[in-house]
Amino acid sequence: MAFISKSLIKNRGLDKLKHKANELLKRTLDQHVSLAVTGLSRSGKTAFITSLVNQLINEGNGAKLSFFEPVHQGNFIAAKRIPQKHYHVPRFDYDAAITALTSEPASWPEPTHGISELRLAIRYQPKDSLLKYATDMATLTLDITDYPGEWLLDLPMLKQTYQEWSEQTHALMTQAPRREYSKGFLQKLADLDAFEFASEELLAELSQEYTTLLHTFRHDLGLSVIQPGRFIQPGDLAGAPILEFFPFPGLENFDANEYQNAPDNSLVGMLRSRYLEYKEQVVKKFYKEHFLRFDRQIVLADCLTPLNKGKESFADLELAMSMVLESYNYGKSGILSRLFSPKIDRLLFGATKADHVTPEQHGPLVALLNQLVHQNKHHLNYEAVQMKTLAIASVKATNSGMSKHKGEEIPVIQGQRLLSAESNQSNKVFGEKITIFPGAVPSQLPKDEYWQSKPFNFIAFAPLKDLKKHQSLPHVRMDQVLQFLLADKMI
Amino acid sequence: MAFISKSLIKNRGLDKLKHKANELLKRTLDQHVSLAVTGLSRSGKTAFITSLVNQLINEGNGAKLSFFEPVHQGNFIAAKRIPQKHYHVPRFDYDAAITALTSEPASWPEPTHGISELRLAIRYQPKDSLLKYATDMATLTLDITDYPGEWLLDLPMLKQTYQEWSEQTHALMTQAPRREYSKGFLQKLADLDAFEFASEELLAELSQEYTTLLHTFRHDLGLSVIQPGRFIQPGDLAGAPILEFFPFPGLENFDANEYQNAPDNSLVGMLRSRYLEYKEQVVKKFYKEHFLRFDRQIVLADCLTPLNKGKESFADLELAMSMVLESYNYGKSGILSRLFSPKIDRLLFGATKADHVTPEQHGPLVALLNQLVHQNKHHLNYEAVQMKTLAIASVKATNSGMSKHKGEEIPVIQGQRLLSAESNQSNKVFGEKITIFPGAVPSQLPKDEYWQSKPFNFIAFAPLKDLKKHQSLPHVRMDQVLQFLLADKMI
Repeated sequence: MAFISKSLIKNRGLDKLKHKANELLKRTLDQHVSLAVTGLSRSGKTAFITSLVNQLINEGNGAKLSFFEPVHQGNFIAAKRIPQKHYHVPRFDYDAAITALTSEPASWPEPTHGISELRLAIRYQPKDSLLKYATDMATLTLDITDYPGEWLLDLPMLKQTYQEWSEQTHALMTQAPRREYSKGFLQKLADLDAFEFASEELLAELSQEYTTLLHTFRHDLGLSVIQPGRFIQPGDLAGAPILEFFPFPGLENFDANEYQNAPDNSLVGMLRSRYLEYKEQVVKKFYKEHFLRFDRQIVLADCLTPLNKGKESFADLELAMSMVLESYNYGKSGILSRLFSPKIDRLLFGATKADHVTPEQHGPLVALLNQLVHQNKHHLNYEAVQMKTLAIASVKATNSGMSKHKGEEIPVIQGQRLLSAESNQSNKVFGEKITIFPGAVPSQLPKDEYWQSKPFNFIAFAPLKDLKKHQSLPHVRMDQVLQFLLADKMI
Repeated sequence: MAFISKSLIKNRGLDKLKHKANELLKRTLDQHVSLAVTGLSRSGKTAFITSLVNQLINEGNGAKLSFFEPVHQGNFIAAKRIPQKHYHVPRFDYDAAITALTSEPASWPEPTHGISELRLAIRYQPKDSLLKYATDMATLTLDITDYPGEWLLDLPMLKQTYQEWSEQTHALMTQAPRREYSKGFLQKLADLDAFEFASEELLAELSQEYTTLLHTFRHDLGLSVIQPGRFIQPGDLAGAPILEFFPFPGLENFDANEYQNAPDNSLVGMLRSRYLEYKEQVVKKFYKEHFLRFDRQIVLADCLTPLNKGKESFADLELAMSMVLESYNYGKSGILSRLFSPKIDRLLFGATKADHVTPEQHGPLVALLNQLVHQNKHHLNYEAVQMKTLAIASVKATNSGMSKHKGEEIPVIQGQRLLSAESNQSNKVFGEKITIFPGAVPSQLPKDEYWQSKPFNFIAFAPLKDLKKHQSLPHVRMDQVLQFLLADKMI
């Protein structure tokens, strides 16, 4: 008995040695990609990551990845989930998400809050590179990080003083569609003396009101520019003074000297110092602790909901996209390159929910997203970053076909309508199966005539029935996503 | 018009100058105390802080603080809330707590989660010190920090290896009352090979089960020793691998070499590295970022609920108190003094809910707490720390008197019973007004005879009716608390 267990241990020791030598060899050959996935809330981040992982780990079991060269050329071997890198970052809950999609009735996965991580090991056969002479198998380690797009919206604050930020935010609040909702709050501020002593409780109360406004802007009005972004997803900072400030209008009309010397316990003094602390402790911290380690980024944008909501909601998406783009502007004038050295070299914009329009509209959809992305490009310097736009559906929820309408063949999609889709509040499935033509997507930034004719009617769909955990999910262009983000690391 | 506004500005400038000079003078005279308030969950931290703040800011409006010398001798001027020091720490929500207590029907304030802060400025007239020759008014700035007592229970982990911690925790799980509940979990572990590759998902699942056990221990069994403490209040770390480990039994029986060399991706390798990371990122971080700045500490303990629950629950409180005490042991062998330099110089233990027993039982109650605290004292070195024990009621919920029972006068208390007091789950008020003698508190650590006779029946009470926001709350010995913690800083 003693002999057997000793010999077992000895064998284990030998195995371990072999294993270690192998590891050492591989480490020099192996590749690593840190992929960041972001998008404003409800743009479909969770479904995207779930599908991406699902496609890779179920490759060979129905995965349709013909535009992903490592699969197309037969170099892809297999992928599996391995323990994530950072112990203090919440795990992306793939199991819960895939369970939601494959349950009966199926539902969309719960949205994530804050940041989360997941790591894949992708085995492949090197073909074109030097690696193939050294080994018949290499591993690409893929770290996927999910974080709220709202965090990117805060970047421009880093170059703004409290006064500049107040002016800009106040300007938004006095225009439609925010104006009507902001009136009461702005009236309260107008009655306050900026230089008077203010209590913590007053600031807490007003900040609560401002935060409620931000939620209304985001969820009721479908707006995209939400600042400060952390206010609507506070996590452990809930109730901390660092999340209790707001824009104060009219600072530009004060005596500059007096404003500069406002005492620390005055209303404006407190607002200003909390704004500065927010930039240091929240905004900069995210860029330092997370953003700097990303190699590749996909930004997801739901262009269809703002098209549905109307002109102002769409204009707000335009503004948000230009703010998001600042994070990828590493030119001399870029805020980021002055503060840090980010290293993202590929940036993909995905127009999500492409399956919610008929296939011939994908062209206009991607053209539209392209305009959103590129209209700001001439101001910026993206030399270092290779960019691409795609219309995608992470998990396809409709089938497309043709239907006769008034004697004419028209393209349609068919799927199960989501219950209370308008409010976007519920993931519950409504049984109704419908066949529709949701309308034409404009291929250019829409003009007034477009909004007047209201040619578009976006409907939210439930996931398809009978999806399986261990089969690959139906999708639109996830293979092209993989091709752009990963293929060059697997040659 | 222009003349007037200029002169206004000039006056403001002058005022500011005077103010600054005054500030400068005062800064040299002013005192500062950083007071930490802790206790295991449901020991009454929120009610305590609410009452402490209430007594100080409403002094002169019914406050009964005759044992607090600054008030008794007439040196106390006034106290008010001012903005807290750390912007990134949640604010202690005094307003919500006092509103709960003074509403109709009244309820106990919602318990706090994690850490929170509140700052008071206390004005007083210096009497005995040098200050009185320099000024007729001085300010004591009081920072109150509320944090979960569970965080202190983690301190002993800092000196334990993963193996030692596993052994100790496993031993607890195989004894009553934990044994019965832990069986299923331990059986699952017994079926696993510690050296086999383990997936993140397996660890997540088992950790979830272990965390559920911890909740059962705390809330159903009324036990006090909950390790790791952060597991039951995860905050932003929810779902992070750093909170996904558990004790693994029998490590001491493995070949030591093999255990040391267990690969990083083996079950035991993963558990061990997460344990180490937890100590670094969670336990040490709390001591570094918070504990080191405390000057004074009050530890609240509810001795009555464990007396009610029985022998094992009480024994667990004993163990928890000895673990908590390690944080105040700054001797040569102390873990803390080897790692950091804490500066707490006064430590108060408060037996809370003293109003839930008749007044003549306060003596035995404080004697009992004294035993809990001092039985460990000879192992430790508390030279640097002055200690005291008190039986208190932060917010008195009963009235006491005498009642005739079988022709004899017996002491009783009278109050409104809390709905579902047994489960401790609800703060709702049950209308029933009752008059009882809850029983005798043992003045020594109870022996088996005590538990067999079950002489004690603790009943939870709702707050008294008609409490007022701007009057001081009824209490038991809050003045003695203030005397011990603050009076020496106000002379």
